[in-house]
This record gives sequence, C-alpha cells and structure tokens, in this order.
Amino acid sequence: MIPRYSRPEMVAIWAPETKFRIWYEIEAHACDAQAALGVIPKTNAEAVWKAQDVEFDVARIDEIEAVTKHDVIAFLTHLAEIIGNDEARFVHQGMTSSDVLDTTFNIQLVRAADILIADLEKLLAALKKRALEHKDTVRIGRSHGIHAEPTTMGLTFARFYAEMDRNLTRMKTARAEVATGAISGAVGTFANIDPAVEEHVCAKLSLTPEPISTQVIPRDRHAAFFAAMGVVGSSIENIATEIRHMQRTEVLEAEEFFSAGQKGSSAMPHKRNPVLTENLTGLARLVRMAVIPAMENVALWHERDISHSSVERNIGPDTTVTLDFALARLTSVIENLVVYPETMLANMNKFKGLVMSQRVLLALTQAGVSREDSYRLVQRNAMKVWEQGADFKTELLADPEVTAALTPAEIEEKFDLGYHTKHVDTIFARVFGAA
Amino acid sequence: MIPRYSRPEMVAIWAPETKFRIWYEIEAHACDAQAALGVIPKTNAEAVWKAQDVEFDVARIDEIEAVTKHDVIAFLTHLAEIIGNDEARFVHQGMTSSDVLDTTFNIQLVRAADILIADLEKLLAALKKRALEHKDTVRIGRSHGIHAEPTTMGLTFARFYAEMDRNLTRMKTARAEVATGAISGAVGTFANIDPAVEEHVCAKLSLTPEPISTQVIPRDRHAAFFAAMGVVGSSIENIATEIRHMQRTEVLEAEEFFSAGQKGSSAMPHKRNPVLTENLTGLARLVRMAVIPAMENVALWHERDISHSSVERNIGPDTTVTLDFALARLTSVIENLVVYPETMLANMNKFKGLVMSQRVLLALTQAGVSREDSYRLVQRNAMKVWEQGADFKTELLADPEVTAALTPAEIEEKFDLGYHTKHVDTIFARVFGAA
Amino acid sequence: MIPRYSRPEMVAIWAPETKFRIWYEIEAHACDAQAALGVIPKTNAEAVWKAQDVEFDVARIDEIEAVTKHDVIAFLTHLAEIIGNDEARFVHQGMTSSDVLDTTFNIQLVRAADILIADLEKLLAALKKRALEHKDTVRIGRSHGIHAEPTTMGLTFARFYAEMDRNLTRMKTARAEVATGAISGAVGTFANIDPAVEEHVCAKLSLTPEPISTQVIPRDRHAAFFAAMGVVGSSIENIATEIRHMQRTEVLEAEEFFSAGQKGSSAMPHKRNPVLTENLTGLARLVRMAVIPAMENVALWHERDISHSSVERNIGPDTTVTLDFALARLTSVIENLVVYPETMLANMNKFKGLVMSQRVLLALTQAGVSREDSYRLVQRNAMKVWEQGADFKTELLADPEVTAALTPAEIEEKFDLGYHTKHVDTIFARVFGAA
Amino acid sequence: MIPRYSRPEMVAIWAPETKFRIWYEIEAHACDAQAALGVIPKTNAEAVWKAQDVEFDVARIDEIEAVTKHDVIAFLTHLAEIIGNDEARFVHQGMTSSDVLDTTFNIQLVRAADILIADLEKLLAALKKRALEHKDTVRIGRSHGIHAEPTTMGLTFARFYAEMDRNLTRMKTARAEVATGAISGAVGTFANIDPAVEEHVCAKLSLTPEPISTQVIPRDRHAAFFAAMGVVGSSIENIATEIRHMQRTEVLEAEEFFSAGQKGSSAMPHKRNPVLTENLTGLARLVRMAVIPAMENVALWHERDISHSSVERNIGPDTTVTLDFALARLTSVIENLVVYPETMLANMNKFKGLVMSQRVLLALTQAGVSREDSYRLVQRNAMKVWEQGADFKTELLADPEVTAALTPAEIEEKFDLGYHTKHVDTIFARVFGAA
Repeated sequence: MIPRYSRPEMVAIWAPETKFRIWYEIEAHACDAQAALGVIPKTNAEAVWKAQDVEFDVARIDEIEAVTKHDVIAFLTHLAEIIGNDEARFVHQGMTSSDVLDTTFNIQLVRAADILIADLEKLLAALKKRALEHKDTVRIGRSHGIHAEPTTMGLTFARFYAEMDRNLTRMKTARAEVATGAISGAVGTFANIDPAVEEHVCAKLSLTPEPISTQVIPRDRHAAFFAAMGVVGSSIENIATEIRHMQRTEVLEAEEFFSAGQKGSSAMPHKRNPVLTENLTGLARLVRMAVIPAMENVALWHERDISHSSVERNIGPDTTVTLDFALARLTSVIENLVVYPETMLANMNKFKGLVMSQRVLLALTQAGVSREDSYRLVQRNAMKVWEQGADFKTELLADPEVTAALTPAEIEEKFDLGYHTKHVDTIFARVFGAA
Repeated sequence: MIPRYSRPEMVAIWAPETKFRIWYEIEAHACDAQAALGVIPKTNAEAVWKAQDVEFDVARIDEIEAVTKHDVIAFLTHLAEIIGNDEARFVHQGMTSSDVLDTTFNIQLVRAADILIADLEKLLAALKKRALEHKDTVRIGRSHGIHAEPTTMGLTFARFYAEMDRNLTRMKTARAEVATGAISGAVGTFANIDPAVEEHVCAKLSLTPEPISTQVIPRDRHAAFFAAMGVVGSSIENIATEIRHMQRTEVLEAEEFFSAGQKGSSAMPHKRNPVLTENLTGLARLVRMAVIPAMENVALWHERDISHSSVERNIGPDTTVTLDFALARLTSVIENLVVYPETMLANMNKFKGLVMSQRVLLALTQAGVSREDSYRLVQRNAMKVWEQGADFKTELLADPEVTAALTPAEIEEKFDLGYHTKHVDTIFARVFGAA
Repeated sequence: MIPRYSRPEMVAIWAPETKFRIWYEIEAHACDAQAALGVIPKTNAEAVWKAQDVEFDVARIDEIEAVTKHDVIAFLTHLAEIIGNDEARFVHQGMTSSDVLDTTFNIQLVRAADILIADLEKLLAALKKRALEHKDTVRIGRSHGIHAEPTTMGLTFARFYAEMDRNLTRMKTARAEVATGAISGAVGTFANIDPAVEEHVCAKLSLTPEPISTQVIPRDRHAAFFAAMGVVGSSIENIATEIRHMQRTEVLEAEEFFSAGQKGSSAMPHKRNPVLTENLTGLARLVRMAVIPAMENVALWHERDISHSSVERNIGPDTTVTLDFALARLTSVIENLVVYPETMLANMNKFKGLVMSQRVLLALTQAGVSREDSYRLVQRNAMKVWEQGADFKTELLADPEVTAALTPAEIEEKFDLGYHTKHVDTIFARVFGAA
Repeated sequence: MIPRYSRPEMVAIWAPETKFRIWYEIEAHACDAQAALGVIPKTNAEAVWKAQDVEFDVARIDEIEAVTKHDVIAFLTHLAEIIGNDEARFVHQGMTSSDVLDTTFNIQLVRAADILIADLEKLLAALKKRALEHKDTVRIGRSHGIHAEPTTMGLTFARFYAEMDRNLTRMKTARAEVATGAISGAVGTFANIDPAVEEHVCAKLSLTPEPISTQVIPRDRHAAFFAAMGVVGSSIENIATEIRHMQRTEVLEAEEFFSAGQKGSSAMPHKRNPVLTENLTGLARLVRMAVIPAMENVALWHERDISHSSVERNIGPDTTVTLDFALARLTSVIENLVVYPETMLANMNKFKGLVMSQRVLLALTQAGVSREDSYRLVQRNAMKVWEQGADFKTELLADPEVTAALTPAEIEEKFDLGYHTKHVDTIFARVFGAA
C-alpha cells in the first residue's frame, strides 16, 4: 500500500482499529447467541456490550501479543481488561481463531466492495455525462492505430460506460462471493459450537452463513473476488490507454485537465503529459498481479494450512486500496478531460477525404462499374491525396470516368458525416436506456 | 492443445470445419435480414441456404487463402464456388471481417461453456454420491497437516461439492458474459449495415446483440471468461491436492483406482502413484496461465488492434480443451476413488486418543479445576501417549487427580466420536438441500 | 503451438521422431558406459548402434504404448524389434524413465536455445544495420507520448540493439542453466547405476552432469529458462510498441513493409496496418504466460511428483516455437521497415520550433534575465506558436525583450539540431564498439 | 510491505532518508564532474559537500513538495536551504529528474541484492551444515508421495544447497543487470550534459554507465532482476514444501523448532504446526507475483512513459523486503530443524522391507528366473506384507521357489541399506567440493 496511491476511507477498512472492532462485534454477537442457547450465562453476554463504545487500545493489544504471540488471545485479554476478567470468561467459547479472522476478512472485503461499487457508480455517472455531451462530436475511428471510418467521441465514452457497467455487475457478484461468515470450529464440524451461533452472528453482520467450511472459509471465493478486481483493473487500463493516445502530441484530441497555475508547462505549452492515465496503466498492473496468488491460495492442505494468510495480508489491503484510488483518479480524469473537437476534425482530414474512399468504391460498384475499374478509379484519386496532399472529393469531381458513373450530388453524399452517425441514438438507447 | 489431454467433443468446437460452419450461418442469417430490409434481393438470400448441407472443403479454403492472404475472403470465395458467383454477390455486404470472427469466437466459447457446465454437473453428481456414501466415515481433520479434530470423509466430499457448485454458477455467469454477437461494421457505428441485421443474426444464434461494439466485441468479457476458468482450475487443484495427500504411503486413506491388470504395481503393491491427481495439478497451472494474457488483451488501441488475436488463437482452444479434460478426469477419479475407512481410524489413533485432549482440558476446567492445573493434568498424560505410545483414555482413567474431577463416564464421553459428527446432517442439508 | 506462428526447424525439435532419436542416443551411450564398466557385455552395447541409421516407426511405438501404457517401455520394445530381443536385453538397465525423459527435455531446450540465440544474432544484425543507416536521421524524442527534445532514429535502433544484446546474454545463460543431464536412478542415489554412466552420456551429448538430482532434474533450472524467454518476449513487445506508434496515421514516421501487390490497401493508401507488430505484441503475452507455471513447477513433492510434466508438454514446445517465430518476424520487420525521415522532421515541427523553448529559457537565464522574467518571455512567444501556429524563432527574433538579452546569432544557435546529436557517435561507440 | 514480514536493514534501503541521501550523492558527484569540465564553478561544486554530514529533514521536503508537486525540486530546494541559495544554483544543471530517480532506484536494487546475496550465503551455510550432519541419515525416497527407494536426509539438504547455490549465482547476475546508472538528459542524448558526468558519477557510486538510455534506464534489466527473485522464491517454496510434508502427523520425520515454553502445544504435544514453512509458501507467492508486472513494464512508450513508476514504488520495496525476510526465516528453520532419524527408519519400514522388492525382482531375473516368474514370486510375497503386515525378507527366505534361485545371503544382501548410500560421498563431493 503506497500512501500516494491511497484514499483514507479504504485504508481505514484495513486499520487495526477496524479489525479489532469487527472482532469485538463477532465475539459479542456470538455471546448473545450462546446465551440464548443457554450455553453461557445471559449476564456474561450482556457484559460484553459494555465495551461497545470503548475505543480499543491497539498499542496495548500489541504489547500483550508480544508476550502471547497470538493476536486473538491478545485481543481477548485486552477485552477482559475493559469488561472485567470474570465477565469476559465465556467470550470466544467454542470458537477457533479462524472463525473470527475469516469472518472479519470477509467483512473487510465486503466493505471494500461497497466502496468500489460506489466508485464505479461515480465513474459511470462521469462517463455518461461526457458521452451525452459529446454524442455527436465526430472523430475518426481507428483500427490498428490507422484511420478507418468516422465515429463520435460520445460513442467512445459510451463504450467505456458499457464496459464499466459490466464491471459494476462483476463487483456486485464478487461482493456476494465473499459476503459469508463462518463460526464452525477447528475443522468446521460445529463440534464445540452450535450452528445457531453462526447463523445469529451472520444475520447481525449482514452475512450469509458459509454452507460448509473447514477451519477456514473456502478460498475459491476470494480467488473469484480478486479476479473480478483484475478485470476492473484491465478496463481501467483500457480507458487510460485511449486517453494517452488522444493526448499524444500528433493526435491531441483530448488532454487531462491542467489547472491554470500548474507548473512545468509554462515554457512548453505542448508539454502537458498524460501522467494520470500513465499512472493508471501502472496501477492496473498492480491490481492484476494479485489474481494469480489469490488463485494459488485455493488449494490449501486438508482442513487448512496458513500459506494463504501472508498473501492476503498483502493483497487484501493493497489491491482494494489501489483499485479504489485508481477508480477515483479515473473518474476525475474523465470529469475534467479537455476534449478538442476541432482537432478531431482536423485529424480526420489529415488525408483530405481519404477515409471516405471505401464508400466511393462501393458506390462505383453499385453504379455498375466493375470491381477492378472501381478500384482503379478510387486508387488513382486517392494517390493524389496521399502523395500530393490533394482533396479527395475535388479530385473525384474532376475525374471524368468517376463523374460518368456518379453525379456530383452522389459524390457529395459520400462525404456526408451524417451517414456514419445515423445510428448513434440507437446505440445510446441500448447503452443508457430509452431517452 | 496436447492430444493426450484432449477430448474430441471440445476439440471439435475449435476445428476449422466448425468455424466455417458458424461463419456460414452468420452470413446466411445476415443475408436473410438484409433481404427483409430490402437491401439485397430475397432470391440471393435464399440461394445462400443451398450450402446448408454441403460440407465445406477446408483444404480448398486454405488453398484460396494462400493466394488472398485473407481467411474470410477465402471462405467467401469457396462459398461462391458452391452456390454460384452470382448468387453469392451480396453475401457479407456491409459487414467487416471482425463481425464474423468475433461473433464466431463467442459462439465457440458459449459451446465450450456448455460442455464445461455439463462437465461440472457430472462432477457434482459424483461428489454428491461419494459424499452420501461416506457421510459418516470418520477421519481426522487436519490443520497445517497436523491432526486436529475428527471430521468425516463425507464432509470432505461435501465441501468439494459446494465449491464446484459455486464454480457451476461462475461458469454460467461466464457463459452469459460471452454470449453476445456483433455485426456493427468497421468501427461499430452500423454505418454500412442496419442494427436490425445484428439483431436477427443474434436471435437466430441464441446470442444477445452487443450493446456497443467497436470493430470488435469488448475484451473485458473474455477476460472475465478466462478468469472464471482460472478459478475452476484452482478448485481442481484443491481437490487433487487433497487426494494426493490421502494417497501418500504414510496416510493411505484413499487411492486413485487401479485396474486389476494395471502394470507397474505388480512387484510393489504400495507403489500406486496418484498420477491422475498430480496430472490435474499441472493442468490447473495451464488453465490458470491464460488469465493474465486474457486480461492484457482488454486494453486494445482505439477501435481495435489485433494483438488479442494470436493470444486467443492459443488460449481459446487450449484452455477450454484442458479444462474439459481436467474436469472429466477429476470426475472419473472421484467416482472410482478407493476409500479406506479403517486406515482413517488407524491414522486418527496414531497417538491413541490424543486428538481428544482439548475436550478433556475443557471438561476439567468446567469441572472447576483451575486452567493451570487442567493443563498440567492433561499434559502429563498426553506426554505418556506421545513419548511412550500409551493410550490416552487409559492414562486419564488411571490418574487420581483426573478422576477426582471427572467420573469415568464423563471421561469416556470425551472420546465419543459422535460428539464431532452430530451436525453432519445439518451441514449436508445446507449443501445438498433437505433430504 | 499454432501452425501459423511456427517455424519448421523449431517444431522439429519437439517432433516424436526427434524425441525418440534422443532417447536412443542416451540409451546407446549408456550401454557403452555400462559395457566399459563391465556391467553388461560389450557385444550388447555394440548391437544397439545397429539402429543408428534406422528411422524409428512412431506409429508402431504408439501402437505398443496403447498396450503398455508406458512410453519408454514402448520405445524400448520397438528398439528390440530393430536390433533383436536378445541384443536389446541390457538396454536401459539400472535406469529410470526420468533419466531418459529429463535428459531429453534438457537436450531439446538446449537445441531450442541454440535456435533462439541464432535468431537473436540475426535480429541484432538487422538492428545494427538500420541503426547505422539512420544514425543521423533526426526525429523528436517523446516522453509521455509528448514531444520532448530531438533524438535520432539511429539511437532508437541502437537502444533496441543494446536491449537485445542483453537478451542474447540472457539466453546464453539460460541455455547453460538447462544444459545438464542426469542418469541417477529412481531417487537420484545411483544405487543401480554408476555415476560414470551419467558422466559418459553427458560428455557424449555435450551436457554437464547434474551435480545432484532426485528422480528428476531440479526445476529451478527450467523456471530460470522460461523466465529468460519471458524477458526476451517483453523486449519484443517493447520494439513492437515503438513501431506501432510510429505507424499510426497521425505520426507515420515508419511503416511495416508492404509489398507492391499486397491487397487491401489499394483503395485506401493510408490503410496500411502494423499487423505484424500488433501480432508480436500478442505473441509476447503468450511467451510471458509460461513464466509463472514454470515457477510453480519448482516445488515438486519429495523426490518428484509428476505435476510438472503436463505443464512442460505444453510450454516446452509452445513457448520456444512462439518465441522463435516472433524473433524471426521481428527481424523481418526491422530489415524491411520503411522509414520516413521527412515526416519525422515535419512532426518535430508540428509546433514550429517549440521543442527548443527550454534551451531558450536556459539561455535567457544564463544571460542574466531573472528566472521569472525568462519564463514570461518564453511563454508569451510560445503561446503564439501554440495558439496561432506562429514560428517560434521568428517570434523570438521579433521580441525586443528577448533580443535585448540574446543576439540573433545566439537565438539561431538554440535551433541548431546539431546540439542534440553531438554525442550520437559516443553512444554508438558504447553500443557497437569503436568504429 | 507488511511489518511482520520485514527486516530493518532491507526496509532502511527504501526509507526516504536513504533515497534523499543517494539523490544528494548523485547531485554532488555530478557537480564535481561539471566543475572539472568547467561547466560550473569549482566553488559551487565544493559547497555542495557542506551537506555531507547533515541529516535531511524529510518532513520539510514533504512540506515543499506539497507546494511544488515535484519531489526532485522539493529536495533541491531543501538542499539550497542547507548549503545556501547561491551555492546551490548549479546543482542538477543539465540533468533530468529521471537521471536521479533511475540511478537511485538501481542503487537501491543493488544494495537490496547485496543483502539477498548475504542472505543466500547464510542459508547455504546452514544447508551445508545440516547436510554434513545428516549425510548418512537414511530415509525413504518418495516419488509421487509414495515410497520408492532409500536415500539420505543429507542428500535432501545437499540438493537444496545446490539449488540455492544456483540461486546465489542468479542473484549475482541479477545484481549486475541493474548495477548501471544514467545521467543522459531528457531523451538520453546528453544534449545538455556531457557523458563524462555520467561516467564520473557512476564510477563514484560503483555503477556501470548505461551504454544507451532514453529518459530512463531500460526496464528489461529490472524485469530480469524481478524474474531472478521469482526463481529464488520458488526454490524457497520447494524447501518449505518438503518440510511441511516431513512434519505432517503421519510422517513426522522432522519438525520446525519449538521452544520449550512455546504455547499452544502444551495440551496436544502432536499439535506442532509447520507455520513457518507454510508462511514461506505464501511469501513465495508474493515474491513471484512481481514478475509479470515487472515484465509488463518493459514496453514503455517512445523515450519513456511513467506507467512503470507506480509498479516499482510497490514491487521495489515489497519484493526485496519479502524475499529478504523469507530467506532469513528459511535459514532459521533449517538451522533449527528437529530431525527424527528413528521415525525415518520406522516410516521406511511401514511395509516391512517392501521398498526392496525391485532389487529382489532384478536379482531373480539375473539368477535366470524368467521375468514373468520373477514377478509372480515377488508379488506373492509382497502381497503378504501389504495385506497381512508380514515381513518381506522373512517371507522370501521361507519361499522355496525364491530360495531355489537365491541363497539366503543373496536375499539378505538385497536389504542392505549400504547399497543405496554407496555414492553419497561422490554426490557430496560434486555439491560441496572435495572433502
């Protein structure tokens, strides 16, 4: 977790204070359930809630852990210091450390997912706004980095919207994957604790009881969770790559926002670097790198080994924090992206009218000219554009063999941009719903 | 794709014959839609269906491609050879190669998903059968590879069932991710083809029209598809690892099936190697390795670049074929797994009764013995088991300090295996539904 | 392994014929060594060489394997069919299948490395040729895709040369990593075969005896080998990315070679797609994806498990074949790359003279103008270029505040391209050695 | 970077204090070189060294960076506060931020490599010590987790030694890969700074001048560096896996050291978990996950983009810190590993004498018994061991058909463990050199 690529709300989820607070809630709810079952006295269960508004002393817990070498025992000892040794004696009864640790990890991932979902919703709002704004802003579509046919900037934003909307669904699915809790004992048999405790605790914490656990919650869930984040990260890279391309000096169809006072560009106005989207490209790699270790974590030995733990201590915080930051940064980039419609038109006409050559070719063929001749006609005029910087339409209109087949009006029509944008509304309706 | 790890049905999906058949269907349906729109003559559309029952000549298509250097054109040329040049002249009109290629790739992935879903269902049936069979077969649960508390072999099968059932859901979600088609032209604007064509073709081929495409269908869908397969592969590794552990000489709680006549084991009956599950462990790595390249494929340049293509030509067939083979192999391993309940009991009692020491400790504490004294009592008897091979229960019954706190019946009860299996039915009901 | 991305020489290394030939040589040399030790009769050892010039019948071996279910036994049976049962009876004595299989795999990797090393040498020759050719071809250097300061096309080729030269060293190191053989028996103890046999066979096959093996050769060697290929693949992507950028319509500083008759570009001369380098970008992902599984293969259980085998059956051929093809394709791209020096100059001057603004700024400061004033002067002239398309030098020469500090000659000098290329020879000497 | 998996020496390399100190040294040496060239006054160069013993105020630099938004400028401003504005005015002249940042990153990696190399040397010493100690400690060798033939514990340690010795070589190679520095300006042309400055700074800092750089040092070097660490991590997993297997309850041939007072095991003496090696297994995944992003960092756009930076800010510290911790932890595990030779013998004899069945089979064949009959004889006696727990040798000696072919002494000899260990000295000499 790198501070400069972190936001406080997500970081807080992974703070020791948060962890201990969740541990506490699990233990307290478990005591309630145990008391309801008659396993422990009701007064003891009630006593645990005395710590409800007490802030746990992380330094003190660390101090105890330094002696006991066991984090859960250290916490329970500290809890006893707060609510009284006698009152605390039934806390954690019948439970295993993993019951607390795994349920807590899942709660943290659920909360992280909630932030990521909110992040995606903000990004979607930004993409939609810019899509509507530039619905009809024509720019050249490119395949292989080479001009193909016209499209619009709105369609570019709209396709990113559609992709991120799928990611929203994926993150919601991923959230559901890890929204489970388990309080099932040392090997998951509930030998020492009734399943009713698990059910009560999960209900209170908005989790689903894990249908069957071992000592741990099965890690295929987490693999799926990190895989979903990996896809989201890849989509971020996709958008970032588009913007980096648009901002390069020769293209310059858009730029990341530069505040008036921002230093570095004063002497060289062209030197505005797409550093935010370049940074997002790197962050995408970081998000993605957690996918394989999360998958390697699935095959634990028998009822558990602890190899997954060090991995999760790293990728749990790091990946969610990085993805949260990246989504927020991307949203800001989209909201503030400076779009240059004039340059888009200028770029499209770099080879004047040439992008329309295929329409002309088709028209000639349909007008009865043989395919070979049509090619020849288009090509000899296209070459004048390519080699001498001529204007394609002007050349066509001046070519008697062309005008023998097509009227000036027909030729003109081939250069109508409206031909390319006539279905934009249809596509927008598909993506954003009926207007 | 390695022949020895391939099954014909999945391989067939990726055969040139299949590909050309799908291309043909897309083109033919597109012609129907174009004719209905009045864009091309109805007779030409109808003529295309003449090739419905004709087998395409792959060698001939390759021959043409060697000249044209373009696979779609080669196919269309061959199609014209079959239905007539004149009849074929409107085929593919307004379409881009990617319209055909991407829709075809998705159809192949959907078909692959259907096989994988069927594979998972067979695996689930096998796991359920073995789970019910061994519901009450007690074995020791292990954390860190070390004996913990008793569980049952049925619970082991049941948790694999639950995990694979989640994978079934994931594969269905993954199937839906890629069940889209696109016929939207060079940059996705429908400039040269009406969206109605896409709708018709998709309806006929059981696909959803891609809401917004560029020249290609967006690759976040495929990233999610391969990620789902990566999770399934990791779950296969999880089960394979359990079986490999169970079969090792010192454990020998289960074995992959060995046919009576199978060679190699004749001289050394102990030398039955878990080669199938070891193989599955390797295959899981192969399935997983496709995840990152599939994610790297998402960020294509502008309206498309072709970097994804070579990746997909490899991982499309290889990953689905490998996963299909692995699931089928695993199903066979599960169906035929030889389980040794007696060894399970023998292993559990390697240190006679010692796995019950925690229950005894708890009982002493609850009987009013201080925590320190309880530890001391348990430990001094446990050590006799550990160091001298004594029987734990016998030692406890002979220890006057222990019997001062617990009656013989109470001590006996601590060694009751039923204590550990009392909630097995509850867990089975969660996993498999009410009986 | 995809035929279209394969070259026959590398494919041949992985053919069954090659494999059986290597098996044969290992067995034959081992027999010689055994005979020299007096373990088997000399006549039997000599008899094995009767098969030296016989082509093995792969179909026949497959047929036998279908019965024996063991590839090495099948081969030995076929060998006996050739040289006689009696003569063959001491072949393989004291050896384990892995002795043959692992030594063979390493020989295949060594041969693959030899091809890859030759590929790299050809690529280096091409890069050097183009570097010398364009040593002084000035183009704009770009950071963040934005114009920075001038550099030369020769330096671009030279840095790719230096990078690939490092890759040459890496592949040579990687070759040495796997150039070992092992004939050490079931668990590597030489219990049934003398170490002298291993030494003899390795000497004959130009391998180093593996200092200590188990049943298998340790897989950290192979992990290092595939990691080296992953780095080479990443460097291919690096060069491919540069060319893709150079070829995009707005930049067009270079193009992959298009043969005169090549179809598809006839109507649209600008539509020449960098499909080879895009393809290389995808192939790089394929090469890279083998790295993690190769590393996951290292941790085999005890003296071996067979999980690595299925992985290597795939990545052994696939990765070497793909990398060989990619290197050859890249070499061809480099050799035939069409470079457009005029466009390079035109691009550099897109904002006329603006890339020199930093030199002017520095000169003003050095001439005693305060940093703030210098900025103001440069910026007001730069803005005229940026916003009105003016020429930077002209504006500076017309700005009295500027000319008060700098003479026209001094201003002129700031626009001298020689300033930026003065150390090109030095750098070339570093990369290619003294002229 | 997770504090609990970190060691202070490696963490210190990545501390801001260290970074600023390296920046300072680069700048100061560069000033010396510039003064020697006559580019800046000697007195200014000398003045910079006034800060030699001053501790930089990180908080103050952060404060300035909060305003300037540029870390190098912030540092230079702070430096000026220390040595005086006037004295500082020529610091950094002609340099680019990346000159400082990249050279610094490489110095940090070199220092990290030095620690890792020292770590490996300590690990090697521990492995060698234990190898010699257990050179003749016989244990069963296992393939597929199944008993095969005897080997020794010393050979196990020796093969880990050989593997880690290769890793030592790899880390030294990796160190050399990144031991370069670059001070070559905005696009690597030395336009504003003489190559002599780079040479001087590199000489002073024990680096090699990068033969050709752009704005940055080429990232194939770093990809190779992280790949080498990935291999080392995989070897750690290899050793960790062996120990985890040895410690499992049913095997118990070795255990991680447990201090007498260590809690948790008091009640259940068998419950000593191999948590350190499980942890190492997870740490290996963390080390490995950096490999692919490091390779994705190679293909920067043109003369640089900044996508690599966020990746390196993470994996630079995290991977080196994790690997350092893992190597140290593994060394401690090896040094303190409790080995149980008696259990090794007991395990080997789990099926009494059965592991010798192949030697008996071979002996029968060599004594003239047909292969089929030999099999039958071995198998019928082996089955008594397998099914009834009989002793293999006893059964053979009592089988008249066997004793008809082999004398009792010959049968006895087949059970001589010395047969399997006769080449241990040879192997040790290969690994550790002549005694």
